[in-house]
Amino acid sequence: MRQRKRSAARPGVARKKLEAYRRMMGEVPSPCIGVCRFGDDGETCIGCHRRDDEISGWFYYDDNERRAVLKRAERRHEQQRRLMRAAMPQTKAPQLSPSGDPWLLTPGPLTTSPTVKAAMLHDYGSRDARFIAMNAGIRRRLCALAGGDGCTCVPLQGSGTFTVEAMLGTFVGGGEKILLLVNGAYGRRMAAVCARQGIAFAAMEWREDRPVDAAEVDRRLAADGALTHVAVVHCETTSGVLNPLAAIAACCARHGKKLLVDAMSTFGALPLCAKTAPFTAVAASANKCLEGVPGLGFCIARRGELAQCAGKCGALSLDLHDQWRAMEAGGQWRFTPPTHAVAALHRALDELDAEGGVAGRGARYRDNCTALVSGMRARGFATLLADEHQAPVIVTFLAPAHANFNFPKFYAALGERGFLIYPGKLTAADTFRIGCIGRVDRAVIGAALAAVDEVLLQLGVDDCAPAAT
Amino acid sequence: MRQRKRSAARPGVARKKLEAYRRMMGEVPSPCIGVCRFGDDGETCIGCHRRDDEISGWFYYDDNERRAVLKRAERRHEQQRRLMRAAMPQTKAPQLSPSGDPWLLTPGPLTTSPTVKAAMLHDYGSRDARFIAMNAGIRRRLCALAGGDGCTCVPLQGSGTFTVEAMLGTFVGGGEKILLLVNGAYGRRMAAVCARQGIAFAAMEWREDRPVDAAEVDRRLAADGALTHVAVVHCETTSGVLNPLAAIAACCARHGKKLLVDAMSTFGALPLCAKTAPFTAVAASANKCLEGVPGLGFCIARRGELAQCAGKCGALSLDLHDQWRAMEAGGQWRFTPPTHAVAALHRALDELDAEGGVAGRGARYRDNCTALVSGMRARGFATLLADEHQAPVIVTFLAPAHANFNFPKFYAALGERGFLIYPGKLTAADTFRIGCIGRVDRAVIGAALAAVDEVLLQLGVDDCAPAAT
Repeated sequence: MRQRKRSAARPGVARKKLEAYRRMMGEVPSPCIGVCRFGDDGETCIGCHRRDDEISGWFYYDDNERRAVLKRAERRHEQQRRLMRAAMPQTKAPQLSPSGDPWLLTPGPLTTSPTVKAAMLHDYGSRDARFIAMNAGIRRRLCALAGGDGCTCVPLQGSGTFTVEAMLGTFVGGGEKILLLVNGAYGRRMAAVCARQGIAFAAMEWREDRPVDAAEVDRRLAADGALTHVAVVHCETTSGVLNPLAAIAACCARHGKKLLVDAMSTFGALPLCAKTAPFTAVAASANKCLEGVPGLGFCIARRGELAQCAGKCGALSLDLHDQWRAMEAGGQWRFTPPTHAVAALHRALDELDAEGGVAGRGARYRDNCTALVSGMRARGFATLLADEHQAPVIVTFLAPAHANFNFPKFYAALGERGFLIYPGKLTAADTFRIGCIGRVDRAVIGAALAAVDEVLLQLGVDDCAPAAT
Repeated sequence: MRQRKRSAARPGVARKKLEAYRRMMGEVPSPCIGVCRFGDDGETCIGCHRRDDEISGWFYYDDNERRAVLKRAERRHEQQRRLMRAAMPQTKAPQLSPSGDPWLLTPGPLTTSPTVKAAMLHDYGSRDARFIAMNAGIRRRLCALAGGDGCTCVPLQGSGTFTVEAMLGTFVGGGEKILLLVNGAYGRRMAAVCARQGIAFAAMEWREDRPVDAAEVDRRLAADGALTHVAVVHCETTSGVLNPLAAIAACCARHGKKLLVDAMSTFGALPLCAKTAPFTAVAASANKCLEGVPGLGFCIARRGELAQCAGKCGALSLDLHDQWRAMEAGGQWRFTPPTHAVAALHRALDELDAEGGVAGRGARYRDNCTALVSGMRARGFATLLADEHQAPVIVTFLAPAHANFNFPKFYAALGERGFLIYPGKLTAADTFRIGCIGRVDRAVIGAALAAVDEVLLQLGVDDCAPAAT
């Protein structure tokens, strides 16, 4: 106190002394607040959050090094505060969905609403007038979601992959060749389908953390005259990357190629329009952004194109042309329909309408995604993708480099707390994924983040930074 | 009266007179009881139930013709009594299943129990430990139902046809040839699958109302050395005919051919044993006699045989070998599983156990079938099949020749009363079908028969005899 008074009294001396001190000490002041006591780990000060080596080395660091130490310390501080909160005695049981199940923060199957599940409490006959009306309504509404005048909707039994395989098999025949745009596992799966079915194909590959580049596609289409079709995955859930559908569609239109889209994980939440991004066919599923149950896919296709596909598909069950003809003729499926899944989708479409359609659903998912990404980043996690490439569907996080981080344990402990996440699917990096679609909202994401805090404490992971690349 | 008294007093004279009278009148007495009044139709006597032409012609008929008239009259009488009962004012609403839906008396989708449907009120993740355990349990129990030591169970998304196509595609490869035993639409569908997938096949055909003849199969297998596989439908729901599986299996074993069985509509209710009727693979579905919901099939296959089928199937989604390998490796499905249908099947298998397994379930279905066939015959309907060929699964009835009988009206009116039946699928005869599987019992069949009475009255059909063939 006296010192400060004197300085104030003799400002010139004080300023000179301060400047000399600053020159010696650098511009970054020490964060020491005089607590100077290590925490439970025996090496991190609970006052300044520096580690012992950072404290003893401080005097020798330059400003940049000191700033890096401060950043790490601040992260540890935030981490510690969360862990303290998380360590408070639990006042409620692990949070579960309304059906008493863990929340499914995955690329699917997803959490669905209680009312969608309750729609399955009825048995419908396949020729039941109620069922035929329901089926016709679904087909009409799905077409409308794709902005599809001149389109038809062909539902198909099975998972989304069944519908993608059906689309490839039905549309690409002998003497035709398809260009597959690949930046993840679902693009590679299309190649496996083509190889199996004997469909002629070429593939262009991009890194899993980068979107498809429409300019490169343009050059390739100009160069290879044998190509008749192009196929792309709208959102590659391998990474969560969003591919530039409109640009790719424009490029296909320019070159007169038919575009087949795997819109499995975006249909119903991201705009898809037969007019602005002209496609020949789109494959999607009931159990992604439409929030129905799994077991049912569908293809939205231009009627004129589909009409030319009789007998092309190499598997009877997967022939979308035959399925379409049967449905147009009698309103019925060729083979036993998954009636309960159809009833669930019918209800789910009502709930999509009630939420404000594609725009409303997309807004909720974007909100979930923002909450998830910012919350995880605040905890020190890093995302694989740059924000501009991220679809609000599923987010890939880099696994922390911390020695105590172990994905199976992390997964299991989150599962015990009522949150099922997803392992990574990347070939190149150690990652895990957390989904933000299905009947979940920002509150669920918040609860999941609190569970992440608890689990990090339990595992003893106090730094979530990934390994330097 | 006086006449009779006198005859009694002079027996010799009376006997002689009676004999002379009999000679003149023939041995078949007139059914006239003196009412002699026509009913609402203006041509049938409400006393003796003969039509006016039968009354006026009686004197000229011989005994055989008179007996035929009596038979018709008795049928009309019985019909009339039922119609009278049916015309009583309705004291209760149309009967519905516990979920408030019509009873499904069809080859599927079927009526399921409320508890099986309630099992779908949960969302499971595909990597959820609960789901993986459930899936493993189902696979184990389905194998056990087929008596299958050395067998494995591979579930597959989609309808039963998807699994049959997957079985054909996975087991029959290049350089192999399958003999299809065809006596209905499902046998023909196997031929369509083979044609699509480019599988070499030959087909033997039988009439739709006759079982496959194992002796003929034996001769064919002896004659055609290129054949490697045989496929048969256990119960052809086209007609309801049961094919002699044990004899066919024995025949295949003798000739060293691999047997593929479509046991779609019998699995769980009729015995099927890998030991007594050795097969290579059997395809079936969750929604037939197992009383789960549609959207899920499975194949029970000999492990050693399946292991040799890598890469044979012409469609990735339908490759049972790949599906099996994935499930063995991680307990997980290759592609999104129909989790709700799996949960329903899990519950349905508990309920099968509770009913006494295959024996108990089969007994209920046989009881249903007996009640249905005898009830319909009492009403004048005729079955397509001789009783010894009838599986207790679905019964084909010949359409009445009566001018007022119209199947769409008959179907709709039964539907309004809460019973959905099924049109015929025969190529050769005008028929309809009524199923006796699913969560229905003799009481439901009885209610359906009462509804048939009401509908016949409504349509004005008083004779259910089919056209003479």
